[in-house]
This record gives sequence, C-alpha cells and structure tokens, in this order.
Amino acid sequence: MVDVLRASTSIVTALAHGARKVIPVETPKEAEEMAKALPAETVLLCGERESVRLPGFDLGNSPMEYKEDIVRDKELIFTSTNGSRTMLKAQTADDVFVGGFVNMSALIRRLTADDKDSLIACSGHNGGFCLEDGVCAGMIVDRLKKEMPQDAMEIGDEALAAWVLYEYYDNELQRMVEESFWGKQLIDNGMGDDLPICVSIDLYDVVPVLRGKALVHDKNW
Amino acid sequence: MVDVLRASTSIVTALAHGARKVIPVETPKEAEEMAKALPAETVLLCGERESVRLPGFDLGNSPMEYKEDIVRDKELIFTSTNGSRTMLKAQTADDVFVGGFVNMSALIRRLTADDKDSLIACSGHNGGFCLEDGVCAGMIVDRLKKEMPQDAMEIGDEALAAWVLYEYYDNELQRMVEESFWGKQLIDNGMGDDLPICVSIDLYDVVPVLRGKALVHDKNW
Repeated sequence: MVDVLRASTSIVTALAHGARKVIPVETPKEAEEMAKALPAETVLLCGERESVRLPGFDLGNSPMEYKEDIVRDKELIFTSTNGSRTMLKAQTADDVFVGGFVNMSALIRRLTADDKDSLIACSGHNGGFCLEDGVCAGMIVDRLKKEMPQDAMEIGDEALAAWVLYEYYDNELQRMVEESFWGKQLIDNGMGDDLPICVSIDLYDVVPVLRGKALVHDKNW
Repeated sequence: MVDVLRASTSIVTALAHGARKVIPVETPKEAEEMAKALPAETVLLCGERESVRLPGFDLGNSPMEYKEDIVRDKELIFTSTNGSRTMLKAQTADDVFVGGFVNMSALIRRLTADDKDSLIACSGHNGGFCLEDGVCAGMIVDRLKKEMPQDAMEIGDEALAAWVLYEYYDNELQRMVEESFWGKQLIDNGMGDDLPICVSIDLYDVVPVLRGKALVHDKNW
C-alpha cells in the first residue's frame, strides 16, 4: 500500500519512533468509538480529511507530528482520506505492507524475501490516479527489476507506465510532489514543509505490516 | 474517446474511406438485432472480442479491413471489447469525438475550435489503464499545451502523467505498442501488422463525431 502524501510516511514514522501499533479505520466515527474501548493513557486518535487534522483528534497526518516522545508505546487509531481505506481494501492479501519513499530499501528487502506476487496498491485521489503514488510505485518496480532475475518479472501496462514516470522524475522528486495535486493542496494549507520529508528516500528501516487489524513493526525484518 | 488498439484507428479509417456512419453498440447481440432492422445491402456488422473477429460478422477490428471498396456508403454497426463501451459512456458530453494517433492534428484542431473543457477518455483494458491509450492521451495534452495560452490550461495528475509517458515514448511509438499488453496480444494473434498503422500520426484528416447514436465524419471540420 502506497500513500506518499502522507499516510505511508506518517505510519512508517510512527512505528520507527516506537508506536506499538497503528490501527487503520475508515471513518472518524469508527476511530472515536474504538478509542473509547481502549485505555485512554495509551491511545492516540490520528487522522485528517482533505489534509486537515480532524477536530478533537490528537494528531493529524503530518509525519512531523509523529515524534518519539509523543508516540512511543502508544496505540494509534488512524483514519485518512485515502490511505486507510486502501489498507482496509487490501486486507485479503497474504501480507499487507506499507511503503513509501521513506522506507524504500526496507520494503524491497521484504518484497524480495519470498516469491509471492506483489500488487502495488496506490491510494491515489478519490479512487483515481495521483502522481506521487504512481512515481513511488515506479521506484518499487525499478528496484525490483534490479534485484530480481529478468525472467522472474512480468510487468503489466500500469507497472511499466509507473516505471516510466519514475525514470522521468528520478532525482527530481521534490519538483514532482510540488507539481502534484496533493502536494499543491498541502502547500496551500501551509504544510509544504511535509513535502521534502515525504520524498526522502530511506529515512527509516521499518516496514509496517498488517497483523489482524493493526499495522506493526515486524522486527524480524 | 481514445482506443488506439484498435477501435479509434478502425473507425477513423472507415469514415475516411467513405463509410456513411459507424454505430457503436455494447454487445454482439445488440449489433445483430440492429443489423436486422436495417437494409441488408448497406449494413456491415463489425466487431471483435479479445482481438478476434466475432463469428458471423463482416469485419473484425483491424483497420486494414476497412478498405474503401468495402465500406464506402455503408452503415457500420460496431462493437469492440473496450472502445464502443467507452463511447456509450461518454454520450452525455456536449460533443464526443474519436481520436487516435492516425487523426491527431485534425482532433487538436477540433478541440481547440471552442473553449469547452476536454475530457480524454482512454478505453484502456478491463476498466483499467493501458499503455498506448495513455501515451496517445499524453500526445493530445502535449499538442494542446503547444496550441493554447499557458494560463488557459489546468492539468491534473492524470494528464501530467500521460504527458510524461508521451515525452518518454515520443519517436518510439512502435516500440511502445510492442511493449503494451494489447500490442503483445495482437502480435500473438497474428495481427502485428496492425501496430505500425495504429501509431501512424495523421494518416487521416477526419474526426468522427457522435450525432445521435452514430459516429459520422463532420465535413465542416
């Protein structure tokens, strides 16, 4: 599951900074109800709609909010415009991982550790394509191409197009997010400082994996 | 509406070669029923599923079949895997045009003749993306960018990504279709000779336009 701006980035950051788990839910209401059932001292309500923190929530969806002293040993209930929905849709897969530029190498190591097929689910925008997730998917394709024997890969039109996008924007990821719909929306909402973080490659060596209903840091990887 | 392989290309070819109209329908059964209601001497049943001509139909979906001595003054009833469905979905637009590489300049002239918004509907593959339609859409974006004042265009993430694809494959359209899912399927089915035709730029100066239920050659353009 890829949601560069910003669910992937924030969830990776949270687990890298010691959060015990991140529980993706679809609606703010579900998040609030789940929070009531958990011990108040360990729960954080996290989420946004259209880039803005939900009213009454502890954290929004900026990776900068997920600092170690805030999230360590906490359980985070997380809802975002597109990312948490994509994760919930992906639940039927054998394994669901969260990937972004910030944990690219760790993700590739995890994906190449067994010979299962990979589906890269881009969160996108209102059910459609968005640029930064497409480019990130293309970087995953590029890395997999380099890691795997050529005849082990069959690449469909979407994956090929994503790879072309990555080829085009490689070394210019900052320009790319500034040109994207979500990037422009974040800049307009005063959160442009999140952009360079979200396109930083390998900030963290963490791959969030879905176990039951929660994303956790699988430390065997 | 863009369906490079091959509905766009065949429909443009048919009208360029004097067909009176092309009526897109969704299913082979509808096509057969409509044909019964029309004078047998002027009707041609045309269509394919998964690249192969439908049994009992006069023509498949290869542009090479749409020769002048076969289609002149005929009414063509046309059903294809993706293209005719896309056209039917687009019916609520003010104007529906059929575009491909083969009629690129004529299409751009038509699109820039008024100041209405344009939606480029790629037929794709089973409701998803396909490479050659994305690249063709990117060429349309590229041409519109060059024709129009910069501030007259607002380009979303999809259009920007399509433009990047076109930038990448420009001058290598033949390689592009050979790498695409549909292109490979056509080659496997012995119809690889259609590929260079489908990526030939400006073979025809015709823009099919939907009038009622039929695509016609609007000769005012």
